[in-house]
Parts: sequence; C-alpha cells; structure tokens
Amino acid sequence: MIKTEVIKLDTCGNCDIINITPYIENFIQNNGIREGLINISVKGSTGAVTSIEYEPNLIKDFKESMEILAPSDKKYQHAKTWNDDNGYSHVRASVVGFSESVPVTGGELILGTWQQVVVIDFDTAPRKREVALNGIYQQ
Amino acid sequence: MIKTEVIKLDTCGNCDIINITPYIENFIQNNGIREGLINISVKGSTGAVTSIEYEPNLIKDFKESMEILAPSDKKYQHAKTWNDDNGYSHVRASVVGFSESVPVTGGELILGTWQQVVVIDFDTAPRKREVALNGIYQQ
Amino acid sequence: MIKTEVIKLDTCGNCDIINITPYIENFIQNNGIREGLINISVKGSTGAVTSIEYEPNLIKDFKESMEILAPSDKKYQHAKTWNDDNGYSHVRASVVGFSESVPVTGGELILGTWQQVVVIDFDTAPRKREVALNGIYQQ
Repeated sequence: MIKTEVIKLDTCGNCDIINITPYIENFIQNNGIREGLINISVKGSTGAVTSIEYEPNLIKDFKESMEILAPSDKKYQHAKTWNDDNGYSHVRASVVGFSESVPVTGGELILGTWQQVVVIDFDTAPRKREVALNGIYQQ
Repeated sequence: MIKTEVIKLDTCGNCDIINITPYIENFIQNNGIREGLINISVKGSTGAVTSIEYEPNLIKDFKESMEILAPSDKKYQHAKTWNDDNGYSHVRASVVGFSESVPVTGGELILGTWQQVVVIDFDTAPRKREVALNGIYQQ
Repeated sequence: MIKTEVIKLDTCGNCDIINITPYIENFIQNNGIREGLINISVKGSTGAVTSIEYEPNLIKDFKESMEILAPSDKKYQHAKTWNDDNGYSHVRASVVGFSESVPVTGGELILGTWQQVVVIDFDTAPRKREVALNGIYQQ
C-alpha cells in the first residue's frame, strides 16, 4: 500500500528545528503500518530533513555550526535576484538535504533512543511549512 | 509497480548543477504514476543529489560555499592514490549525499514552487553522468 | 515485497568509516531481489550513511574535512547536558544524514565502480552500531 499525508507546521525560521517523530508515529498508527518504509520530505528550498538528539543545548550547537558552513554575515549573490536576505538559508538547506527515509518493522520505526527525525527551517522569518510523509507498507 | 530508468547527462564538472526536475516529471508522465515515491540517485562518488532554488546567483553562492566546506586549494591525500586532483570533489559529494526521494500524489511531485531537484557534478572535468530514477507507485 | 534486516557492526568511533556495500549485495542475493529500492539507515544520532570511494587516503581526507565543518576542539553546549564530549559528532552526523537509498535493477545495485555505500561512526569511542537495510522489491 502507498499513502502520502502532508502535515503543516508553523516555524520560527532562523534555523528553527522541529521534532516531527510524533507525527511519523501517528501516521504509522493511523494507517496500521506493520512493515514498510516512511519517507519524510519538506517542501521549499530553505527547509531540510535530518535526525538529531533533540535536546536544547545540542540544538544551539547545531545552529552555531551552521555559521561555519554558511555564515549569515557573508555576502550572497542571491540577494541580487530577489533583494532578499536568505542566501545562507538556501546553501545550508541544500547541503543538509530535503528528505530522509526510515524503515518500520513490527509497527515500530527503526530509530535510536536519542535520535529524533527533525525538520529544520533555515529561512530568515516565521513560515508555514509543509512536510510530506510517504509510506510504502504492509498492514 | 516498480520501475527504474537511467538518464544520461553531459556535465561540465567543477560544481556544475543540473536541474533534473523536468526528467522526473517526464518519468512520472510516461509511466502514468499517480501515487508513489520517486528516488533519485547519482552513479559515481563525485556526484550528488539535492534540491535548490535554481537561479544563477544562488548557484554561484552554492559553489562559493563549497570552498568553505572543502577548499579546492587544500592538499588532499587522495592525490597520492591516483595522482588526481579531485579530493575536494569527493569530500563535497559525500557530505551532500548521492540520493533523495520525493513523493508523488495525484500525479504531481510534492516540491515547493522554487525548489528544483538537482544533480551536482563536483568532479574537476566534464563527464558523462548517469542518474537513476526509481519509482515505486500505483497508476 | 517488503523486507527489513538489521545488521550489527563493531565500530572504532572517531569518524570510523565502514564499507557496507557487501552487506547490501548479500541482502539482495539472499532475498532474490531483481527490481526495487534498498534503503540504508543507521540507528543513533552520531552515525551517518553516505557513499565514498573507499580508499585509505580519501578516508583520511574526509576525516580532516570534518574538522572544518565541526571542529573537535571547539566548545559545544551539548557537554552541559550529559557531560560528554561528542557535540561535534552529533553536528557532523546531522549534516551528512542518516539514510540513503539505491535502486536495484536486473539484480544489481546502481552504483559507480568507485562508489561504496558507507556507514560513518562520528562518535568518540568504539560502539556497537545497528544499520537497517530495507528492500521494497520484485523477485
């Protein structure tokens, strides 16, 4: 069976990191998924999907580290196209990537205890974000 | 249903970024895909797959940012193995990753308006590249 | 058909990189997979999955490059939470990502000749690691 559900998130931008593991667990339960693969992908070119140990200090570390990869005070050519300020948001999102997939077996996600699936909003202002959960599965 | 198609691209190397969204849309149309998941993966260890807003200034920003992550003027041990010059190409490709997956619902890819799926050729010279499109789907 | 198998690896930590391509090939052969998609994902928030040309000098280059992205001698807030020393391990793992997918056609993985699928253990000490192989396929 194949099922896609789009969830909507209100994000704060500026590297806001949202734990979406509970949404994935609901999706598994609501569809009676026993064996399969769940793909998580984010709409928009300044969002990303990855996993992290979701605790506040590490979230701070991640945000700080992004300043090394794509500093927010560097000059980006992208500003010339739209006169906007989110060149570094785009670069960070493209490097981290917009999708990940996790298997389900016996009705349970295969994730570590301290590993949460997260959506990162790298954009510079609050946004409505859409995240697609796709399951290919047996009940 | 499961279908894999391999597309061939002529790339310029040096961080050449190719928008392959039209190829994915053709794949969906040609196979009558209504609901499913499309995986995009690139053959070769100096290629990568991600998404970006495909506009020329941001493409420049992305290339510049790669010089932070893996500078082209740094010394790489990989040169000792093959006497080649693409150590930084490999590092960049491994960080960005070689595959992404996007769901299809109602015959449409779930992507943002300004979000294109791209193949990046990080290698140092023009190449023939193969990119696999895999669909698991219902018609 | 859908099948998930969890393999166990003994890793050395500190950016240990393990070629798991032979495990994937065994999984394909043991299950008689002809056409399909194999997802590879690692349990734990300090592990990552990507591809690389698996040769010793490039492995050294990759480890060195990680010191740019998330230096091991920087101060990480994560230490305040658990009094541990692996803040940079987490950041690196989140950037590289925990899953990739590769198609199979005619019983063969679609990978480049010099492209191996690898699990990276970014943690700071030897660990037991679990890696999930998920196949959605036809025989």
